[in-house]
Amino acid sequence: MLQGNAIIGQSGGPTSVINASLCGILQACFGQKAIRRTLGMRFGIEGLIEGQVVDLGREDPALIEALRSTPSSALGSCRYKLQDADFPRILQRLKQHDVRYFFLIGGNDTMDTIHRVEAYCRASGYELLGVGVPKTVDNDLCGTDHTPGFGSAGRYVALSVKQAGVLARDMKRVDQYVIFQTVGRSAGWLPAAAALAKVAEDDAPHLILLPERPFDRDRFLAGVKRCHERYGWCSVVCGEGIRHADGTPVSASSVQDKFANVEFGAMGGTSAAMRLHHMIHAAYGWRGEFQVCESLSMCAADRVHPGDLEEAYACGRRAVELAAGGASGVMVSIVRDGSDPYRWSLATAPLAEVALGAKPLPDAYITAEGNFVTPACLEYLRPLVGPLPDYVRLAGVSNGQ
Amino acid sequence: MLQGNAIIGQSGGPTSVINASLCGILQACFGQKAIRRTLGMRFGIEGLIEGQVVDLGREDPALIEALRSTPSSALGSCRYKLQDADFPRILQRLKQHDVRYFFLIGGNDTMDTIHRVEAYCRASGYELLGVGVPKTVDNDLCGTDHTPGFGSAGRYVALSVKQAGVLARDMKRVDQYVIFQTVGRSAGWLPAAAALAKVAEDDAPHLILLPERPFDRDRFLAGVKRCHERYGWCSVVCGEGIRHADGTPVSASSVQDKFANVEFGAMGGTSAAMRLHHMIHAAYGWRGEFQVCESLSMCAADRVHPGDLEEAYACGRRAVELAAGGASGVMVSIVRDGSDPYRWSLATAPLAEVALGAKPLPDAYITAEGNFVTPACLEYLRPLVGPLPDYVRLAGVSNGQ
Repeated sequence: MLQGNAIIGQSGGPTSVINASLCGILQACFGQKAIRRTLGMRFGIEGLIEGQVVDLGREDPALIEALRSTPSSALGSCRYKLQDADFPRILQRLKQHDVRYFFLIGGNDTMDTIHRVEAYCRASGYELLGVGVPKTVDNDLCGTDHTPGFGSAGRYVALSVKQAGVLARDMKRVDQYVIFQTVGRSAGWLPAAAALAKVAEDDAPHLILLPERPFDRDRFLAGVKRCHERYGWCSVVCGEGIRHADGTPVSASSVQDKFANVEFGAMGGTSAAMRLHHMIHAAYGWRGEFQVCESLSMCAADRVHPGDLEEAYACGRRAVELAAGGASGVMVSIVRDGSDPYRWSLATAPLAEVALGAKPLPDAYITAEGNFVTPACLEYLRPLVGPLPDYVRLAGVSNGQ
Repeated sequence: MLQGNAIIGQSGGPTSVINASLCGILQACFGQKAIRRTLGMRFGIEGLIEGQVVDLGREDPALIEALRSTPSSALGSCRYKLQDADFPRILQRLKQHDVRYFFLIGGNDTMDTIHRVEAYCRASGYELLGVGVPKTVDNDLCGTDHTPGFGSAGRYVALSVKQAGVLARDMKRVDQYVIFQTVGRSAGWLPAAAALAKVAEDDAPHLILLPERPFDRDRFLAGVKRCHERYGWCSVVCGEGIRHADGTPVSASSVQDKFANVEFGAMGGTSAAMRLHHMIHAAYGWRGEFQVCESLSMCAADRVHPGDLEEAYACGRRAVELAAGGASGVMVSIVRDGSDPYRWSLATAPLAEVALGAKPLPDAYITAEGNFVTPACLEYLRPLVGPLPDYVRLAGVSNGQ
């Protein structure tokens, strides 16, 4: 068995459970005789290149255990695309620290990083075992049923939309609509998760705008009006990256003139939800609000789904077991063995395949109208997000009143 | 003891615990022999005027109990300022339903409503006992140490800012600032609550912008820069209603030209946080994000502080006990008997006094620089918001790195 040190990095946007994966890797490393020291990269591969390496074996075991309930990326994270000139420097760092086990927790760019580093080392005659641990709230990673972090972020979205929907229904004499924006630039998994909030027909959400479908202003406004006629209010959920048919992001579109468009383009952008808010207000004169929580859904440790946490931890442990068994060039993946009751197991996916691209919401998960998700999608999502609380409604307070 | 029916209404913006007050009133009414039937107004006083009255005695007791964990206003709410012509119609409805006990849960406008309805009935020779139950996430109600609903909304704010701060610190190589906006147009209690998130010196929040202090762009930008130099990132919390010295809301101010200003004025407004975001981006070119959760902090039932829930329920029960004892023209109020350990009891405040105005954050709770709160403020806030979770930091990951 290959003797040497292990190094771990966290990459890309955090999640509420990425530190649980870190905890799993660390606790497994500490139990491997072949791994002498366990190191951490500050700020992912970028920190490694700079030589920002910390000795994680010196950390208090109680603190390591507490990583399970600490959101975000305890080692610090980065978004860095490797340049050719980086590889010799990375190899030098790996040699300097006698690293033979290389673990990164991240999304498809991160898997590409492991893949390329491992290939460079092999070509250079330096033996390195590289295994990836999946992570992203966007759930758009190929090669796995879902990614750790998604279920908890989806839970944040579904809880928020459900609670805001109860409020909007009770306040419909004051405000006529509520718009919730999720993160996830190109995949609609998070806005889709909001659909779990709906139990009764008039419950939120009413319309879900997905990046997988072009945004059409007239159809959107007609849909909002239909909901308003039916319920007296309307709940809209949108992905941050929804686009018009010509590819322009809705967040960059102007409502009435070009000035705002130009200004916000130059000023670092605005939000799709605010644009929808302005469209509804301009068309109907109604009052309403838009909610842009941004990364709050990626770090809400108190809203974690326990199953998500468990899988994140298990993926971390499995990565070490795989590498200790000589595996390399793979990502730990989650296999769904059943949806009801939910059963899962771990497998692997080749890094090269995972790195190829992002996984959008499949057509079978989107309704024909393109503004809601199908029962098949709900069946997929339900065990990942977990059961939502029941809120009661007075029997004397019927829908029509 | 006055025999007759009771009626209950909920008014103004909801909270996560206003239904606990409703539950307290209902369960107490059901136990009073003098109260024959217990009715509810749909959509507050507006529904009563229209004759939208429901019989709450027919509701399942288990459902009544479940109101404790259901956010928002189960009866529906309104924002309605009484007109002179409304009083005869209200009196007619009260007579029609033989209402002798009149309870509203709300803020200072609501207390004014009870006060005026009670006075009108007295002047008309109709005996009515009117008692108010305090409620508002803004905590700006006079005559009470604090309002039910505030602690839980403050908890939402503090949790969000704490979690987003952990994320921002870990991601400081990607994004350099995070801005969180709270509700509360004229009082700074909710942005102040964010200060509880801070334990270590570099923890979020770094700057708190309160509606009680004029916003100064240059000082703000200098403060952000100082934080960035010190920590590599900056966390800003702002109240939605912060204003420039001339009274213009920051949410309505334009960054570079007047067009956006005009457009957004006409389109139903934007947000203070987005304006701050644009200011920072324009001044320093940094990347960052703004978070506008709006009413989500008013309905997050899973983030309720148990003490807040208990007080909300107790205030509801006490209102009935007071009226059953012949009291009228008062609001139930909460008295703080101690902060550490926290002890409280119930008392009353005259409606006439409560209705007079809103209670801003006192000067003693705001630092001399005007961009943070004092230890006295933290002592006041701590028992209302409750203990926040501890998130760990790796020992090898020091501040400076």
